[in-house]
Amino acid sequence: MAGDFSSNSERIGTHIEKLACYNSTPGRGVTRFSYTEQDRQARNYLLDRSAELGLQVTIDPVGNIRARLEGRDRDASPVLTGSHIDTVLHGGKYDGVVGVVCGLEALTVFTEKGFKPGRAIELIIFAEEEGVNFGAALAGSKALVGVYSPEDLQKLTNDDGVSMYQAAERFGLEPGTMDQRVLKPAQIHAMVEVHIEQSLVLDTEKIPVGIVTGIAGMKRFKVEIEGQPNHAGATPMRYRKDPMVGAAEIISTIEETSRSRALPATVGTVGRIICSPNAVNVIPEKVDLFVDTRDVDSAGMDTVSEALRDKLEHLAAERGLRYTITNMGEIEPTLCSETVVEALQESAEKRGIAHMPMSSGALHDTAVLAGITKIGMLFVPSIGGRSHVPEENTDLQDITKASDVLIGALQRLSEL
Amino acid sequence: MAGDFSSNSERIGTHIEKLACYNSTPGRGVTRFSYTEQDRQARNYLLDRSAELGLQVTIDPVGNIRARLEGRDRDASPVLTGSHIDTVLHGGKYDGVVGVVCGLEALTVFTEKGFKPGRAIELIIFAEEEGVNFGAALAGSKALVGVYSPEDLQKLTNDDGVSMYQAAERFGLEPGTMDQRVLKPAQIHAMVEVHIEQSLVLDTEKIPVGIVTGIAGMKRFKVEIEGQPNHAGATPMRYRKDPMVGAAEIISTIEETSRSRALPATVGTVGRIICSPNAVNVIPEKVDLFVDTRDVDSAGMDTVSEALRDKLEHLAAERGLRYTITNMGEIEPTLCSETVVEALQESAEKRGIAHMPMSSGALHDTAVLAGITKIGMLFVPSIGGRSHVPEENTDLQDITKASDVLIGALQRLSEL
Repeated sequence: MAGDFSSNSERIGTHIEKLACYNSTPGRGVTRFSYTEQDRQARNYLLDRSAELGLQVTIDPVGNIRARLEGRDRDASPVLTGSHIDTVLHGGKYDGVVGVVCGLEALTVFTEKGFKPGRAIELIIFAEEEGVNFGAALAGSKALVGVYSPEDLQKLTNDDGVSMYQAAERFGLEPGTMDQRVLKPAQIHAMVEVHIEQSLVLDTEKIPVGIVTGIAGMKRFKVEIEGQPNHAGATPMRYRKDPMVGAAEIISTIEETSRSRALPATVGTVGRIICSPNAVNVIPEKVDLFVDTRDVDSAGMDTVSEALRDKLEHLAAERGLRYTITNMGEIEPTLCSETVVEALQESAEKRGIAHMPMSSGALHDTAVLAGITKIGMLFVPSIGGRSHVPEENTDLQDITKASDVLIGALQRLSEL
Repeated sequence: MAGDFSSNSERIGTHIEKLACYNSTPGRGVTRFSYTEQDRQARNYLLDRSAELGLQVTIDPVGNIRARLEGRDRDASPVLTGSHIDTVLHGGKYDGVVGVVCGLEALTVFTEKGFKPGRAIELIIFAEEEGVNFGAALAGSKALVGVYSPEDLQKLTNDDGVSMYQAAERFGLEPGTMDQRVLKPAQIHAMVEVHIEQSLVLDTEKIPVGIVTGIAGMKRFKVEIEGQPNHAGATPMRYRKDPMVGAAEIISTIEETSRSRALPATVGTVGRIICSPNAVNVIPEKVDLFVDTRDVDSAGMDTVSEALRDKLEHLAAERGLRYTITNMGEIEPTLCSETVVEALQESAEKRGIAHMPMSSGALHDTAVLAGITKIGMLFVPSIGGRSHVPEENTDLQDITKASDVLIGALQRLSEL
């Protein structure tokens, strides 16, 4: 029976366009911050659709919405799917919305077809994912799993000095009671999120669906390289201790190691450089670099970190440069659940939808739930890799295919 | 007879220490800007010494001092030697002063020994060399050869809005009449300047005297490299167009080419880099580099420039990066006079003083005179390569050796 269900492309497109109208910056991308009038309008649109479907709706004290299609086993923990509807300033129509609309479409199809899942299936709409207003990403999902306490939400403030806690209160919520609603591991069976990829892989490969196998971890370092400042004209090459030349070797090492010597999913980036005195006629005294490496497997990040340290030792020995290296942050990688990944793969294969495994370099609400449940994600292509801009775009046919894959996977997961 | 003359080390040391006392920042290096009270005191000290020696002194309308030991042929153009006595803010005791004091010592020895040169030999003390006060280096010598007109001097102003022209007037000079005193090619036979090296070569090689064979020219470029900005976590290595990685290849290419593939005196430096947006988690959109290459032979700079262009083409083809390259300035190299270089070498060899040929990467007053006369320079070691700082230092014995070499060369040049 499962293979027969398919999504309604036109309906998906209508939902996306309707939600894009709840926007505080018309003509300059979509802006919909949490707990604003635009957010309320978008929420009401989704609550109306949920009501039409007869779903049981609950809204938690920070505003995370859950709309439940009851299962045959009312006591079994539910399967969740969804994403968020808040946006960055002058963002696009797809980031977050795609995952919410695919979840809504799945529940719509199930309802239309009279499908009764084994476990309940719920659409979840996370509050405040982007973090551009109150300064902390994933705040709604972090509150849901207890990573952020109500006190933490009081400390997250926007440019007007209003805290996320206050904004939620003014919106009619009761964030102070969130402690009693924090999710515990046994309460959720699985979480699946559809999201735009926000990079170039699927668009370049012309594959409509990416099945995420892991959320990358991160290691970040500040590298300070000191040499000997001197006159750029008067100092022969053989007498130089030039930290800019050392920095160049580091940048090349990070790139070569990440691309060719580490693991397939390893990335390494030097996105920030500070040179002192940064004058055209002076061999620099000091160059600071920031190195960011990510992978779903720590071994890949370790290879990059080791190559960095080896190269720094080499620079000290060969070029007389001094260095310090400071650990600026570390996040462990998160593997997706094999159960969820297999359910997604089986669904895609059964429907003949081209797909590829991939890792997520960015964090999403679903990763926050990894500590309490089995997680998985589906990516759809971002045209040109663009996101968080008005030009953000994904082909409606690709979203429809992801919705189809999601439908099959939700059916399967509800029976496991 | 010439070989017998030798310098008085103690007297040289005394002059250097006395001049260092005319200082507006005692305890924090030597600061002596042109046309200040400290400058007047230093000038008076040197004018008194010149008077004691019976030298004929003239001061031109911008304050360049010439003190003349008459030659046997009163109509022959003179041989000049000297340097400057102005300093940077919190500078040292040696930059400029060494060349003035060596010239004074030579004329002192000649006078004591009753030596009568063929051509007159003159000590020249250039006004306003450093350029830190009025913003233009070599202003005194440039006015002397007509590169700067009196109108130009009115445009050079210090932080208080006082122009070099006004400051010279307040000092009792008449800069408006400088036009009538501009030097013409036939008026000077040769110019020799002793100066601290301001880099590491002589100090490292433990050689007391460098004989300058050429003043390096310069080519300077701004290189703008544009790639594709993207999320540092979400973008696999194979999809990247990272201008920081391109910049690293450029920096390495400039260094390798200058060190190993160009000419022995070629230098190449990337001293300034600007990355945009310069964020640790974003593959940069654009990186700007400033490339400075210098050599006494244009062919060396051409090799670096060609390697830069080749590498940029390679980056465009291999990494999909776009670039622009802008010429930010070009100065032709200046060769020293073979006559002067030979006179210096002969003098050093006759006296058994270790010496080496070298090029000057920085510009000096003597280079400004290259258009009107035969030029040459002697460098003495800068301990640790330091200059323009209070720690600036040169061994008195090395200065004495340079003075000895200068004496012999001046004698020889006065007879040619």
